[in-house]
Amino acid sequence: MKNVTLLGAGLVGSLLAVYMRRRGYAVDIYERRPDLRKADAYGGRSINLALSDRGFRALEKVGLADEVRSVGIPMYGRMMHDEKGQLSYQAYGKEGQAIYSVSRGGLNFKMMDLAENEGVRIHFNMRSTEVDLDEKIVHFEKGDTRQKMSVPYELLFGSDGAFSALRGSFQKRDRFDYSQDYLSAGYKELTIPAGPGGTFRMEKNALHIWPRGSYMMIALPNPDGSFTCTLFFPFDGPDSFASLKTREDVAGFFNRTMPDAVALMPTLLDDYFNNPTSSLVTVKCSPWIHENHSALIGDAAHAIVPFYGQGMNCGFEDVFVLDELINQYGEDWSQILPAYQQSRKPDGDAIADLAKANFIEMRDKVADADFLLRKKIESKIYQLYPEKWIPLYTMVTFSPDIRYAEALRLGQVQDRIMDEVMARPDIRLNWEDAATTTFIHNLMTHYDKN
Amino acid sequence: MKNVTLLGAGLVGSLLAVYMRRRGYAVDIYERRPDLRKADAYGGRSINLALSDRGFRALEKVGLADEVRSVGIPMYGRMMHDEKGQLSYQAYGKEGQAIYSVSRGGLNFKMMDLAENEGVRIHFNMRSTEVDLDEKIVHFEKGDTRQKMSVPYELLFGSDGAFSALRGSFQKRDRFDYSQDYLSAGYKELTIPAGPGGTFRMEKNALHIWPRGSYMMIALPNPDGSFTCTLFFPFDGPDSFASLKTREDVAGFFNRTMPDAVALMPTLLDDYFNNPTSSLVTVKCSPWIHENHSALIGDAAHAIVPFYGQGMNCGFEDVFVLDELINQYGEDWSQILPAYQQSRKPDGDAIADLAKANFIEMRDKVADADFLLRKKIESKIYQLYPEKWIPLYTMVTFSPDIRYAEALRLGQVQDRIMDEVMARPDIRLNWEDAATTTFIHNLMTHYDKN
Repeated sequence: MKNVTLLGAGLVGSLLAVYMRRRGYAVDIYERRPDLRKADAYGGRSINLALSDRGFRALEKVGLADEVRSVGIPMYGRMMHDEKGQLSYQAYGKEGQAIYSVSRGGLNFKMMDLAENEGVRIHFNMRSTEVDLDEKIVHFEKGDTRQKMSVPYELLFGSDGAFSALRGSFQKRDRFDYSQDYLSAGYKELTIPAGPGGTFRMEKNALHIWPRGSYMMIALPNPDGSFTCTLFFPFDGPDSFASLKTREDVAGFFNRTMPDAVALMPTLLDDYFNNPTSSLVTVKCSPWIHENHSALIGDAAHAIVPFYGQGMNCGFEDVFVLDELINQYGEDWSQILPAYQQSRKPDGDAIADLAKANFIEMRDKVADADFLLRKKIESKIYQLYPEKWIPLYTMVTFSPDIRYAEALRLGQVQDRIMDEVMARPDIRLNWEDAATTTFIHNLMTHYDKN
Repeated sequence: MKNVTLLGAGLVGSLLAVYMRRRGYAVDIYERRPDLRKADAYGGRSINLALSDRGFRALEKVGLADEVRSVGIPMYGRMMHDEKGQLSYQAYGKEGQAIYSVSRGGLNFKMMDLAENEGVRIHFNMRSTEVDLDEKIVHFEKGDTRQKMSVPYELLFGSDGAFSALRGSFQKRDRFDYSQDYLSAGYKELTIPAGPGGTFRMEKNALHIWPRGSYMMIALPNPDGSFTCTLFFPFDGPDSFASLKTREDVAGFFNRTMPDAVALMPTLLDDYFNNPTSSLVTVKCSPWIHENHSALIGDAAHAIVPFYGQGMNCGFEDVFVLDELINQYGEDWSQILPAYQQSRKPDGDAIADLAKANFIEMRDKVADADFLLRKKIESKIYQLYPEKWIPLYTMVTFSPDIRYAEALRLGQVQDRIMDEVMARPDIRLNWEDAATTTFIHNLMTHYDKN
């Protein structure tokens, strides 16, 4: 049984470590940062993530799903806020289906604890500078001292995120396909503090969105009653990070565009100027593996933008799929790694494309009347034909048995059908009629055969 | 007037140096390799390139065009060789239009000589390891001694090729879009030596192609009577670099697929096993510039595959366009560099896409009856409407006033028209009829308006 070396003790690395340890592998994780559990802080900011069924399925296998579900906050739908503070609501799925707001730091700490309890060794302050794929050695620089260390490995996973060192070493070899592309929008985190006694000042069990066309703000609830807000905003242009220069600019902009949020954000101006502005990158690459001993996993293999809430879920699913393949092939890593790549690469590409497309949907379309009608019609078809027409959001979020690549393909077929439906005369008036339903059913049958 | 620093004394770097020197700039080039003129060798291999009108236009401005044309070998068309050695011929353009086979090394040496004669300083054996874009310093490692040197700059151009160090430093910054993607085919150079007394053993004034569907070989003439052949071949699969393992495999393969070439290649087996197998990469990136002081040019900005013969021509055109912009904006580099990027980036992307598409055309279609009919029809339309329908190859190769991006767009319109034409009943019989011509003319008018 090979010794397993992981780069990165983030969410995916910690989970993979637990999986491998349970199988009896000796596991060492090398983590660039210090042990943040000792500081009880996670980069100084309260970041939350939306955990959904794919993530839960992977946590389930190591017995963590129920515990995480119990501390997470279920969000059953989107709550849209318009310019006047008027609210409208869309459920994400069927009765009881929810995505869960969880603390990134809290979840990561819990998983590091679990990993160490099971015998995983986590080495902190170890920054990998280079991986020698021929000699199977990782070169590190140790924290403050910048002391250099070299560690041989047998089986290596790069769970070291969007700027992966292992991927950097892959990239220096011939015939490595690679792309990184940035959105023209970035993001900034802001906050809505809790009300008196830790109460929530907006609906607790929803993901809040202020959709505004070329930009948007979202807010996810935290257990302490606060919300973490994220402003997704163009870097340049008329309404942009570049255009808001002074406190007056920022106050004027928020008062004009999201007055109901401003009323709940007493530290808005300080937060705006103190918190960093970050960029949003999509990374695709190929191959994900090198021979039978090195592989990328999670963001290192497929960094995606956050608009489908699937980054962590996709990384956890990588671990889940890898684990299934170990069941299938035993210890034969010369079979496991190619099968892992072949299985997961199309799904990583698909969720990357879906996540980019969902930015448009969230910022631009969720407030649009035609879009809302499409959703209503889709929802009706889903009720009529629950096996044949599963809405895209449901496939991605609540249907882990449908692969991302398949969800993307089916979603494209649904789009073609809905384009034809929306082009029908008087669709706004007759969308509930039997003739419309028959028309849709015929199209479904047609595309099913083709 | 700023001092100009160039990374890379290749074809594009040397040409840019001459251009800038003529304007009175002090110019230093730092070149990774030793001075190959002293060895009178260029990487030990005889490499030739196809120079066409865009390249000549840029050489013209510094008075090099006539001299280069006089030593180059004009190729007026493609000569296709089928499996039985049967030949067929397609002219590239109109009477007298040709692309020129020139020696890469010879042209580069000539341009380095010219640059030095004009006062450009070329520093050899200087490998740039990192560019500090904030401090405006290039860090170098000097040849064998590995001595480190740091050189401040005022205005920097990275003409350092597909694996550019300047681009590497751009890539370490936030929001740099980048992609590298490799073809699943690679290439290997082979040779057809001269006949007795330096005679040519095939037609001298043509580019020879052995198109074979999933692979092909091409051959370009050299002044000494030899031809440099390039086999473009999949890395893996049934007929591939991986499948040919022994001398018997190679001999069997060439005898089966290109017997007429084998008869002219006495050193085929030695060449095959001695010469390296190289990969084919396309690089796109953005931005190409940093503030008013650093810019990528040539392959560093847009590495493309060689199937349109435009790599060098596109790089030379970068220099030509930059020069026009200096005319327009004088010494104001905060205007010149953004204008250069805005102008050239769409063209770099376009020729990259055209070059990839031409691989399919060359290896797969040039021997296809429908494809040949399309070309015949196009050629006729071109004669009838020389202002309105210029074949894509002619636009790219012989029409430097048409930008690559515009050529790509017009080519796509032509494709749509020709798809409709080829779908007409009995087109093989009636393609010369007036009705067909009218049909095409109507389509042209239609697309012209849309």
